[in-house]
Amino acid sequence: MTQFHENTLKNPFSIRTDLAIEARELAQQEASAADELEGVDVKTEETSDYFLTHVRILSEEGSRLMGKPKGDYITLESEMLKENNTECHKKIIKVLAENIHSLVEFGKDACVLVAGLGNWNITPDALGPKVVSKILVTRHLQGSLPQEIEETVRPVAAVSPGVMGITGIETGEILKGIVEKVHPTLLIAIDALAARRSSRINAAIQLSNTGIAPGAGVGNKRMMLDQDSLGIPVIAIGVPTVVDAATLVNDTMDCILNEMMAQTEHGSDFYKTLQSLEQEEKYQMIADILGPYTGNMFVTPKEVDAVIDRLANIIANSINIALHPGVTMEDINKYTF
Amino acid sequence: MTQFHENTLKNPFSIRTDLAIEARELAQQEASAADELEGVDVKTEETSDYFLTHVRILSEEGSRLMGKPKGDYITLESEMLKENNTECHKKIIKVLAENIHSLVEFGKDACVLVAGLGNWNITPDALGPKVVSKILVTRHLQGSLPQEIEETVRPVAAVSPGVMGITGIETGEILKGIVEKVHPTLLIAIDALAARRSSRINAAIQLSNTGIAPGAGVGNKRMMLDQDSLGIPVIAIGVPTVVDAATLVNDTMDCILNEMMAQTEHGSDFYKTLQSLEQEEKYQMIADILGPYTGNMFVTPKEVDAVIDRLANIIANSINIALHPGVTMEDINKYTF
Amino acid sequence: MTQFHENTLKNPFSIRTDLAIEARELAQQEASAADELEGVDVKTEETSDYFLTHVRILSEEGSRLMGKPKGDYITLESEMLKENNTECHKKIIKVLAENIHSLVEFGKDACVLVAGLGNWNITPDALGPKVVSKILVTRHLQGSLPQEIEETVRPVAAVSPGVMGITGIETGEILKGIVEKVHPTLLIAIDALAARRSSRINAAIQLSNTGIAPGAGVGNKRMMLDQDSLGIPVIAIGVPTVVDAATLVNDTMDCILNEMMAQTEHGSDFYKTLQSLEQEEKYQMIADILGPYTGNMFVTPKEVDAVIDRLANIIANSINIALHPGVTMEDINKYTF
Amino acid sequence: MTQFHENTLKNPFSIRTDLAIEARELAQQEASAADELEGVDVKTEETSDYFLTHVRILSEEGSRLMGKPKGDYITLESEMLKENNTECHKKIIKVLAENIHSLVEFGKDACVLVAGLGNWNITPDALGPKVVSKILVTRHLQGSLPQEIEETVRPVAAVSPGVMGITGIETGEILKGIVEKVHPTLLIAIDALAARRSSRINAAIQLSNTGIAPGAGVGNKRMMLDQDSLGIPVIAIGVPTVVDAATLVNDTMDCILNEMMAQTEHGSDFYKTLQSLEQEEKYQMIADILGPYTGNMFVTPKEVDAVIDRLANIIANSINIALHPGVTMEDINKYTF
Repeated sequence: MTQFHENTLKNPFSIRTDLAIEARELAQQEASAADELEGVDVKTEETSDYFLTHVRILSEEGSRLMGKPKGDYITLESEMLKENNTECHKKIIKVLAENIHSLVEFGKDACVLVAGLGNWNITPDALGPKVVSKILVTRHLQGSLPQEIEETVRPVAAVSPGVMGITGIETGEILKGIVEKVHPTLLIAIDALAARRSSRINAAIQLSNTGIAPGAGVGNKRMMLDQDSLGIPVIAIGVPTVVDAATLVNDTMDCILNEMMAQTEHGSDFYKTLQSLEQEEKYQMIADILGPYTGNMFVTPKEVDAVIDRLANIIANSINIALHPGVTMEDINKYTF
Repeated sequence: MTQFHENTLKNPFSIRTDLAIEARELAQQEASAADELEGVDVKTEETSDYFLTHVRILSEEGSRLMGKPKGDYITLESEMLKENNTECHKKIIKVLAENIHSLVEFGKDACVLVAGLGNWNITPDALGPKVVSKILVTRHLQGSLPQEIEETVRPVAAVSPGVMGITGIETGEILKGIVEKVHPTLLIAIDALAARRSSRINAAIQLSNTGIAPGAGVGNKRMMLDQDSLGIPVIAIGVPTVVDAATLVNDTMDCILNEMMAQTEHGSDFYKTLQSLEQEEKYQMIADILGPYTGNMFVTPKEVDAVIDRLANIIANSINIALHPGVTMEDINKYTF
Repeated sequence: MTQFHENTLKNPFSIRTDLAIEARELAQQEASAADELEGVDVKTEETSDYFLTHVRILSEEGSRLMGKPKGDYITLESEMLKENNTECHKKIIKVLAENIHSLVEFGKDACVLVAGLGNWNITPDALGPKVVSKILVTRHLQGSLPQEIEETVRPVAAVSPGVMGITGIETGEILKGIVEKVHPTLLIAIDALAARRSSRINAAIQLSNTGIAPGAGVGNKRMMLDQDSLGIPVIAIGVPTVVDAATLVNDTMDCILNEMMAQTEHGSDFYKTLQSLEQEEKYQMIADILGPYTGNMFVTPKEVDAVIDRLANIIANSINIALHPGVTMEDINKYTF
Repeated sequence: MTQFHENTLKNPFSIRTDLAIEARELAQQEASAADELEGVDVKTEETSDYFLTHVRILSEEGSRLMGKPKGDYITLESEMLKENNTECHKKIIKVLAENIHSLVEFGKDACVLVAGLGNWNITPDALGPKVVSKILVTRHLQGSLPQEIEETVRPVAAVSPGVMGITGIETGEILKGIVEKVHPTLLIAIDALAARRSSRINAAIQLSNTGIAPGAGVGNKRMMLDQDSLGIPVIAIGVPTVVDAATLVNDTMDCILNEMMAQTEHGSDFYKTLQSLEQEEKYQMIADILGPYTGNMFVTPKEVDAVIDRLANIIANSINIALHPGVTMEDINKYTF
């Protein structure tokens, strides 16, 4: 998980969000205006099953405002991601598969490496490794398959490199080493993310073409996984699966304060004190207070195991369909049980 | 888990604590006095490795004040429970094994049934089933063992009955059915508990001889597992492994308010509003606000899998030593891998 | 597993087969004739997806010849059970669901208890517990569901009682205790079986209405799970998931001898010696020789985990469809992920 | 597993053994003499707890006779490896840790990479990944530890690269890529092996300094993991955890034939036919016959999960002690739970 699976030794809460849609909300707040951010283009699409937001960061200024690299960030939001709703999941799989192609162009025989980032021992961080276990891997069969089958599958390899606490090695080092041997045309990296709104946990999937930095958010410098470092394009697929304790308190403090204001005097000094705080400052203050106390806690839904399995299924199906010409919507769950 | 693994359909947060030491804290607060509660006897013992509190509820009045049945509640607290500290764990295993015997007298050949309550699919609720998987089970070998070995082991049976959401059956019904077939002299039930202080998560083990009510705390009436319902004495062993989101917010609100008071005007109306709330009222208000929002969330440490395994080891070792004459401190971890 | 999960202390190989179709083959061989066995009725049905054999033991004589109680034994055989063939599995789920109803009549509101026998720690014996984890359990929701939903679901409970080596208690005792509390109308028990032909491993599902005896085959007397012992009808669903080492050697000795006979003198004394052995005698001789050597070995396919998962899915889907009026072929895999 | 986890498409049984002690037995048989093989030095050591054989292949001729590269092969045999015997395991851990140092010299600050080969989804092939999960990994902490602690630990990294069927990439490619980034001084590779005697399953641990070839035995050309390919010395640690079906039949055919010869005429043509076969020819004939029938079967003890866990513990403890100056026999199981 980008803010989760690496050691978060100092100041675990000085995180920014992994989600472009949240970064945009924060940036808008700071700009204290409803008008569009310069250099940031946003398109949305709503269906009965999901809400799709395409954030495109076009300029250096947009990148600075958003705190994220230039490029495309597509976020699919749906409460149905958490439910056992096969029909809705089919539609989501379809739109994800299409958007994988929209993010990076790659030839029909190009070799693709799928990397499941995260720690398989911690359920909400195990999303990436779970997706990898459901990918239809074919690279090693090239040349040994009958011609008619060979045409239905692209060469695909898949690895779960682990996290630094498990391997002693930076995830980026391991992947760079493998990329230099396998020479894929494209890397697809799946990772669990941290969100800044409890309501988004397991309810959003973000696709981007700007690379991913395992652990970057936590203040440690980490090797970025992107075109610059690896020499190939990178599609990152992420799902916010936890919030930290400070986020939970921050969110609920807002609810509680609103509630209380109704019962107390509006002009109270306490309210003014709080109101005068920037959103980010307030979060930071809470994080600082909580630090020694809950630094090691995270907040997760009770049914997290089942939900992570379901999300891994959805993502793996959409990757299998996006990559292999012969795998279609008819084959959903054929390779992912 | 007593407040956790059963459906918590209505008002999940109107819980009281499972821990007698916390019930006493709350009762003391309500009595708004530092003096002893009537009908409640408390003894403590401190070593460099753990802190032991023996709460004895002696009268109906004590029971009413504490909201718990008459009887003995022994709580061992140690931050070392969360650490990989073999030497310290040995001392804890020893004191737990001794206290199992102090709670209920049972003959040296008496058959004991060990029951691991909780949901094996949810890590922090899987403590009971994990302990059961490490118990040295011998009841079925009675009569087939050589005389000299037979003398070293007591007849012990062990089951993990599951939770109602998994089986469709009340845990108490299943255990009563089994008790009526097996006719044990004693039931030892292990369960994960809910705490009311985040700091106690995985840092305390409570032993009691007053029975246990799976799910009772959550407002649903559940069959109590105790001498009355089962006809045999019951030792309950519990560990607080989660807090709910409301507890976390409640705890941290207290910290934050204290912090803020230092920076703001003491006489503010807001502060007065908060100060005028009883501890329990405040918790309830937070729970009500949070209800629809985080009712399904829980707060757990990141390394929960490893910690639960360690706790299960400690408890299983202490039960094996307490029950089998031939299992001693020399045999720690011999049956619990 | 009927011949597998209980201790097989003495002569682990004096087993007879769990499969009625194999019992019939053996009985036919002993009768050394192709004509029908007295008191045994056999009907078969073949489709492109599976082969169905309905063996009905009608009389005491038939029961004696077959070594099995009177009643119905329906065996579905299909190599596709081992493959990832969704279309074929749908047809198998449908025919299994229909046959569950053909074996025992039960009213549309009757409560059904599903029991997953076997040891969840040993992959090929974990079939029963895996099926149970995929059953749509509803008994505890009766009364709390809206009327229109309540009509779509029957009260269903489900338990995995474990095996004697884990619990210290006979499986039959545990289930009898639970039946006496829950008062179901029908018990459906799922168990892994032992086969006598390696080729049948994971390639057959047997349904019967004559009860099941955990561990009975291995010479230990065990409590039979049937109408007599439990007071309610029992449907047993079994899959042969292992063969013992003696079966493998026996099977392959046959192949090898046939092969060798082509290269050597037909009249050789050795061949005569072997040929003069009854099938059962030969097996017994091999088992005796192998006993001390491989008594603890079993033979299983490499991909056993994936195959057992797939079989558990098929069986759980067919039970869910057979039991709940509102669960149909449209809902396949909705409750079994 | 060297003969197990890679695809064994053609002729899965034309394997030779992974164990030097078995290769020597076979070579001796072919040499049809009890005298020493040229260029092969053998030393043995027996204690009440284990039997240690040090085979040293000194010359090209020895290498040719043994079918193995020049170098050292140390095999520890003990039935106690399968049992829960802590005292005996301690002695085994000690002797293994010493022998790791005897095989390759490496400086006290040298970085070591530990690689767990094999497929984590197949229990008997999961030995390597299980060992890796119990290794005390420290490379990423270098520089951030206090001086006094830093002196007690060597930089150690650890990876489980998976198998080609899972990743689509040769294990050797992945490891070479990682070695080129991490620049370790030594690779320790743990793998499950195939044995040629059922009696050796889980009862032997082999250490060697000649490298290891994942899947080499099965006829596919695979990249060797050794000093030549990786540029650093390689210690391979292997345990035979399965035999194939042909080995089981071969072994038991021998028993059965011996038994039968006592009852039949010694001069029979059949016996002569069998006797005239070389050991290897006979095995090959059985393998050919069995091929289509049991090519996908393996033979494993029932309690395989527990035994593999125990073996992983023993090996991980010995590696931790061998590598880290500050980890001693006092710390057994401290890092391996």
